[in-house]
Amino acid sequence: MFIQEILDIVPKKRGFHLITGQVTDALHGIGTWKAGMCQVFIQHTSASLTLNENADPTVRMDFETYFNKSVPENDPDYRHDYEGADDMPAHIKSSLLGASVLIPIRNGRLALGTWQGIYLCEHRDRGGSRRVVVTAWGA
Amino acid sequence: MFIQEILDIVPKKRGFHLITGQVTDALHGIGTWKAGMCQVFIQHTSASLTLNENADPTVRMDFETYFNKSVPENDPDYRHDYEGADDMPAHIKSSLLGASVLIPIRNGRLALGTWQGIYLCEHRDRGGSRRVVVTAWGA
Amino acid sequence: MFIQEILDIVPKKRGFHLITGQVTDALHGIGTWKAGMCQVFIQHTSASLTLNENADPTVRMDFETYFNKSVPENDPDYRHDYEGADDMPAHIKSSLLGASVLIPIRNGRLALGTWQGIYLCEHRDRGGSRRVVVTAWGA
Repeated sequence: MFIQEILDIVPKKRGFHLITGQVTDALHGIGTWKAGMCQVFIQHTSASLTLNENADPTVRMDFETYFNKSVPENDPDYRHDYEGADDMPAHIKSSLLGASVLIPIRNGRLALGTWQGIYLCEHRDRGGSRRVVVTAWGA
Repeated sequence: MFIQEILDIVPKKRGFHLITGQVTDALHGIGTWKAGMCQVFIQHTSASLTLNENADPTVRMDFETYFNKSVPENDPDYRHDYEGADDMPAHIKSSLLGASVLIPIRNGRLALGTWQGIYLCEHRDRGGSRRVVVTAWGA
Repeated sequence: MFIQEILDIVPKKRGFHLITGQVTDALHGIGTWKAGMCQVFIQHTSASLTLNENADPTVRMDFETYFNKSVPENDPDYRHDYEGADDMPAHIKSSLLGASVLIPIRNGRLALGTWQGIYLCEHRDRGGSRRVVVTAWGA
């Protein structure tokens, strides 16, 4: 039994954004499943998805601070910089964090921990709209 | 066909710990599956899971060394430090490594490589007990 | 409905290599699936898999540049260096990027974004042949 929905996420500014609500809204029909899985997948190479703290917005600000220091812009050794200083760093951050998260379903809902939320990580200054594929399967 | 088990892992000291045995012990019933998948998911934002070398304990020590250098404590730019110097770095390490691992099942067992083991990565000084959801599906 | 194939990838030089074609060639039989998932899993701890830009080879070169700077060789604090300067850094890079990618299937094919390709990330100077398990399930 599969459910699959496409979410077009409106453009967000560079940084880390909670999208847990948009994902759970797409999961009609899992309420009767005893066990299952849900994957959230982003179809881009300069944005990413991760799970992290869902309450304090300063965590998401500190993520932006950390990744900007850890993956510097304007490294003179980069060869790929056609689209600007944020181009190659965005690709690298995207692979460090990953293009998908996979969350178990238990007793009809996502089995997230109390403090876990789904982050859409926008690594470009002007990334535009982002397409996310939500797929769930279970029984 | 789904199997789902909750594992409550006793508190571990900060560092990288093998839990492969505890996961395989939870997988009764996959012995007859020709193919399938097993996800191991941690319901926390300051600990993580990864696959790496299962034999030499110095690899796990060097992981701790590397991640402590790569994700520094006490960066004056962090805003989120309510719970101490290890708070924000633990969140970042958790997203760099990820909250889950996904392992294929083949001929009734986990299709891990010879040297692959499952690490529970404890990023807090006193993380306490950690809850892990093991889900397997196959046929 | 499960499909599972083993791919033995011929030795590749250290760096980032596109293997999207080899994966899709292994996916006979998904053409009639409305929805599903495909996991690509590498059975090693010194190589990894990720999704990133599939067109410009300079992106893959810059990945190698970035990861070599970010995970230095010959750190005097490493304890595990039996197999040479590239040994411990290869293990760390492997966990930063991850041992698997998971891609949704939609309308009979991988639902990759326009620019997404599958990278095999070879972190050893002489990693040899690499074994990859491709598993797909759907309906």
